[in-house]
Amino acid sequence: MTETIAGSQLLAEIREQPAALRRLVEELPEYEAVAARMRDHGPALVRLVGHGSSDNAASYAVYAFSLLPGWTAMRDSISLSVYYGAELDLSRSCVVALSQSGRTPDVVDYAERARRRGALTIALTNDVDSALAAACELVLPLAAGPEHAIAATKTYTTQVAALGLLAGCAAGDGTRVASGIREVAELMAGLIPALEPRVREMVSSLAFVGRMFVIGRGPEFATAREISLKLLETCKVAAEPLTATDFAHGPVAALDGLFPVWAVAADDAGLPAVREAAELARAKGATLIASGTAARALEGAAHVLPVPAPSIDLLAPVLSVVPGQLLAWALAQAKGLDPDRPAGLSKVTLAR
Amino acid sequence: MTETIAGSQLLAEIREQPAALRRLVEELPEYEAVAARMRDHGPALVRLVGHGSSDNAASYAVYAFSLLPGWTAMRDSISLSVYYGAELDLSRSCVVALSQSGRTPDVVDYAERARRRGALTIALTNDVDSALAAACELVLPLAAGPEHAIAATKTYTTQVAALGLLAGCAAGDGTRVASGIREVAELMAGLIPALEPRVREMVSSLAFVGRMFVIGRGPEFATAREISLKLLETCKVAAEPLTATDFAHGPVAALDGLFPVWAVAADDAGLPAVREAAELARAKGATLIASGTAARALEGAAHVLPVPAPSIDLLAPVLSVVPGQLLAWALAQAKGLDPDRPAGLSKVTLAR
Repeated sequence: MTETIAGSQLLAEIREQPAALRRLVEELPEYEAVAARMRDHGPALVRLVGHGSSDNAASYAVYAFSLLPGWTAMRDSISLSVYYGAELDLSRSCVVALSQSGRTPDVVDYAERARRRGALTIALTNDVDSALAAACELVLPLAAGPEHAIAATKTYTTQVAALGLLAGCAAGDGTRVASGIREVAELMAGLIPALEPRVREMVSSLAFVGRMFVIGRGPEFATAREISLKLLETCKVAAEPLTATDFAHGPVAALDGLFPVWAVAADDAGLPAVREAAELARAKGATLIASGTAARALEGAAHVLPVPAPSIDLLAPVLSVVPGQLLAWALAQAKGLDPDRPAGLSKVTLAR
Repeated sequence: MTETIAGSQLLAEIREQPAALRRLVEELPEYEAVAARMRDHGPALVRLVGHGSSDNAASYAVYAFSLLPGWTAMRDSISLSVYYGAELDLSRSCVVALSQSGRTPDVVDYAERARRRGALTIALTNDVDSALAAACELVLPLAAGPEHAIAATKTYTTQVAALGLLAGCAAGDGTRVASGIREVAELMAGLIPALEPRVREMVSSLAFVGRMFVIGRGPEFATAREISLKLLETCKVAAEPLTATDFAHGPVAALDGLFPVWAVAADDAGLPAVREAAELARAKGATLIASGTAARALEGAAHVLPVPAPSIDLLAPVLSVVPGQLLAWALAQAKGLDPDRPAGLSKVTLAR
């Protein structure tokens, strides 16, 4: 293996994301074909399964399927069927199984069981020759290209865009969503170089942070989950993702001035609750980091990391995770940690 | 309002839980009648909604409905329909809306919309005259009695038992589950006085803990969520609930010797993964707290808080949250905090 500078793989993969998104859009015909099969199956329920970043992308898909074709979607429990032996009727379900490598054993196991029980099974993976692809009836290429850093970045953003594209195709709106993803790729190509120096300036003030809440709502809850995971994996920050409502319900009581709160604010129906949560956090003396398309709508933030608003609101999460990816990279370096190879993690999850 | 000693309401309500469970079982005929209506509706999907502890109880219900009557159940997104305007077909859904007070505005709003869209709506609440009860077609009494401490305890355990009872009735097994709940009430009545001195001994070693992971799996993931929430609300500990798999996937990288991990271990199909997660935590130098019916199966724990195993495995979560409730009470007192009235929280969630 070639010797690399700590964090250089992660940074290279963050920078490669616009290209990965453009590759994804080339696969539009495949997505249209799979969406047609889903429509034929007449799904009462779309079941999404995956671990880690894949499960975070699934949080996004719950919104994308509900708001575009109007299909109920859920992040299904893998353990229920694989370990606890639940016997459910899956005949009117579509399963979308998410795994970068296509080798996560219990995701493969889940897909095999679901297919036997009558679900239409779809693998969304970087490796169309993987065990997961073989286990599923249909395969969608993620087209993100090989990912080497243990912390996923381009896999995540491409999964989010791919799930948006699939939901768009299911709603008969694939061409428009594909154009929207192309626009997002352009916006991201401008965003990344602008953010790199910004996050480098921020990290000295965050070097001793041990815990954080990351707040999101609606489609941006996925972003809050993914930013938290990046900070946990690469920077040893105990970051916990919370919806704006959950935050106000209990965790706000734990806040003090040593406790930064990161709020992902989108200019959508969720903004009032996120703004209110940010005000609660400030009132308790917490340091506020604001990001998202509506970052500037949050008052009193110590750090503001806005992202440009794409034409299709629902695609904003593809962009809004980028400040979190870059901050995780910069903070890990400031702490002397190697974000390419976090202690105790491996690239392929051998979950069981 | 009568002056009370800090934490005395919370402790009184923890101690009252066996009596609340016995009251719940008296309502068996109501639960049988509602379950019959659910069967007639032929549900493709049970949608559970609630905030905070109610949402934690919903995590349990996902397992109870899947494993007893074999019905798919999900914690539904309130914001999707209430704020983002998703237009979903709910004609083959049953909704179980959870609210202690029955006054949580967006839960009421969700229930009204779901009823208009054809769902069979069921309120599970302490107040059968509340707005939520009026909004739903059917009402199930929780029978936990008035709860005064802001941190919910008897409401949570009674909700878990009630959801187990409803799932049992749906499976044609209500009488057996009702007997199982009576047994759990007896076991809990013995457990609480035995645990009180144990948790008092533990708290001095945890006084400076600022963050924690709480691991659970399967039906006990609800327990991990609820223990985390109690520690957050009452003790300002940034406790994050994680499934055993999620923990191993990323957060394990954040661990060090200052980072306690609480593992809830049940003697069921989830035990190997919880045991493995506990070993990972120990290998990183984290202090381990072990609880649950299989607490003694975890090696190297600094604190072991086992609970007795009930005859019906699936009812173990009603008991296994109790060590967390009592530890939260004792730790708050040791820190000079009032667990009856945590700063910044109110009893009725005015979520929006």
